[in-house]
Amino acid sequence: MVIANLVFASIENDLSILNQNLQNMIGARHPVLYAAAEHLFTAGGKRLRPAIVLLCAKASSMTNNISPQQRRLAEITEIIHTASLVHDDVLDDCSTRRGIQTVHSVFSTKIAILAGDFLFAQSSWYLANLDNLQVVKVISKVITDFAEGEVRQGFVRFDLQFSVEDYIAKSFYKTGSLIAASCQGSAMLSTVNANVTNEFYMYGRYMGLAFQIIDDILDIVGSSNDLGKPAGSDLKQGNLTAPVLFSLPEETGLINLIGEEFSDADDIDRALHLIRRGSGIQQAKDLASEYLQAAISCLEAVEESVSVNILKKLTLLVLERVS
Amino acid sequence: MVIANLVFASIENDLSILNQNLQNMIGARHPVLYAAAEHLFTAGGKRLRPAIVLLCAKASSMTNNISPQQRRLAEITEIIHTASLVHDDVLDDCSTRRGIQTVHSVFSTKIAILAGDFLFAQSSWYLANLDNLQVVKVISKVITDFAEGEVRQGFVRFDLQFSVEDYIAKSFYKTGSLIAASCQGSAMLSTVNANVTNEFYMYGRYMGLAFQIIDDILDIVGSSNDLGKPAGSDLKQGNLTAPVLFSLPEETGLINLIGEEFSDADDIDRALHLIRRGSGIQQAKDLASEYLQAAISCLEAVEESVSVNILKKLTLLVLERVS
Repeated sequence: MVIANLVFASIENDLSILNQNLQNMIGARHPVLYAAAEHLFTAGGKRLRPAIVLLCAKASSMTNNISPQQRRLAEITEIIHTASLVHDDVLDDCSTRRGIQTVHSVFSTKIAILAGDFLFAQSSWYLANLDNLQVVKVISKVITDFAEGEVRQGFVRFDLQFSVEDYIAKSFYKTGSLIAASCQGSAMLSTVNANVTNEFYMYGRYMGLAFQIIDDILDIVGSSNDLGKPAGSDLKQGNLTAPVLFSLPEETGLINLIGEEFSDADDIDRALHLIRRGSGIQQAKDLASEYLQAAISCLEAVEESVSVNILKKLTLLVLERVS
Repeated sequence: MVIANLVFASIENDLSILNQNLQNMIGARHPVLYAAAEHLFTAGGKRLRPAIVLLCAKASSMTNNISPQQRRLAEITEIIHTASLVHDDVLDDCSTRRGIQTVHSVFSTKIAILAGDFLFAQSSWYLANLDNLQVVKVISKVITDFAEGEVRQGFVRFDLQFSVEDYIAKSFYKTGSLIAASCQGSAMLSTVNANVTNEFYMYGRYMGLAFQIIDDILDIVGSSNDLGKPAGSDLKQGNLTAPVLFSLPEETGLINLIGEEFSDADDIDRALHLIRRGSGIQQAKDLASEYLQAAISCLEAVEESVSVNILKKLTLLVLERVS
């Protein structure tokens, strides 16, 4: 956790300002919505996304400072992320996340739909008030990508034709797009140099993809500390992720289990066993490492600074979760 | 229907362009989402909102022309409205609207959440691409208001403390805000004169409130032609609307029925009978008429034209629905 300390220590103050602002932004007007949102905001979220946005703000600025607009963007990013989690949990019908109960299981599906709509709406409103049309466009695209990702995820469960390329595309919509766009937006608020802002976009994109792959490995190896939900939860829903897809050519038994949609009670454990014994997990780790290397390369084009260096170190933190 | 002919004939071509564009905008990439959206877009919607936006475009322009941005705004308005209907139908758990089955009953709750999110996301994206930050702000506010309205609606069912003032506030969030903001946005795309754009905002606000009151009267008088759902559907959910609230002081029996949340099977019919026999419906009509007069007054400040005249006539069309 030495890297984590280094990364988070550099923006510890900024993250506590963010936490305070998030509570104020969601507002105390609606006790139930507030409870629903607070539930998530205080639920031990890693604040990885806002941390990246804040570091990109410093890294792209001449003065190593974070502007009020960039702070707001970090908050918006976390709100959008939270909104998507609330609706995702309804769509996937999962009852726990990060070890605590989801909004729709504590309250109801209705409250979860409302809370998600409310958070998305709040984010649009705060976004418009950043007063930067370019940033509005970049972030609006993310919300469309989320919906696209949700749709793709919803319609390709248990689909053995689903390829690694399809998986990457889906992961981009689901995770990469938000991180990429918010890194780019953060840089856009520092500089109009499109070459630089594009490198930040690509940095975020690669980080997002790697982060998703690692998350998907955790679903298989089942470190419930990190996930707070049972191992194989995603697989059970028919989401074929990197470690699963890489295992398919090695394990015909796995193909059958997925084809039959884990019809027997212990099928999911049998599938996890097959995936864990082969090279699929390692192949997925290797792919994540490649993306993280690519993320570091993007920052070579950016002027060196302490913050740029921390953004590079952050890639190690992503891998550390499965080491 | 003479007024309807007059109003819609003047923008018939524009509305058919809008219909075509809506189909293209939602896209054919996702057959199920497309089906879900098409289902609504072709479901005999009155296109009242886009008609108002297009007429405001003409009325606010020097040349009586509609710009491509204004057409897009009319489309965005209809997409936002549709998105809100899809989620509302899940929240209210109603199975038909305008005489046809709702998305969540034809497909599933998941598809309805997805379709609503997708439509909201698309509208944010198209909105950002109008390239007018003022309009983005005005319309983003609407989406927040919707969420606020949904929340208020969700938490005040069967609440006998709910006042006519509360009802007006809720109706503003639910209906008035979108029409007001899109009238204002449409005018903003013609002129920067804030006095004029504010009058268009107020016109839309009064029209929206009147429209909601009339809709709520239809729920009580039960013209299923207009509603496509059984009379008393809203009342059954505990939504206390203008005709109900105006009836409460006259009918203590009604207070008891609501207090007991219509616990007996025929309670809703008894309540409808009590409301219909009193003056509540007439009082609600009178309130709607006042709002429509106020809407007409707003347009006195706008330079006279054929389109301004049609916008005034449109107020009669709103009342005609219950005459």
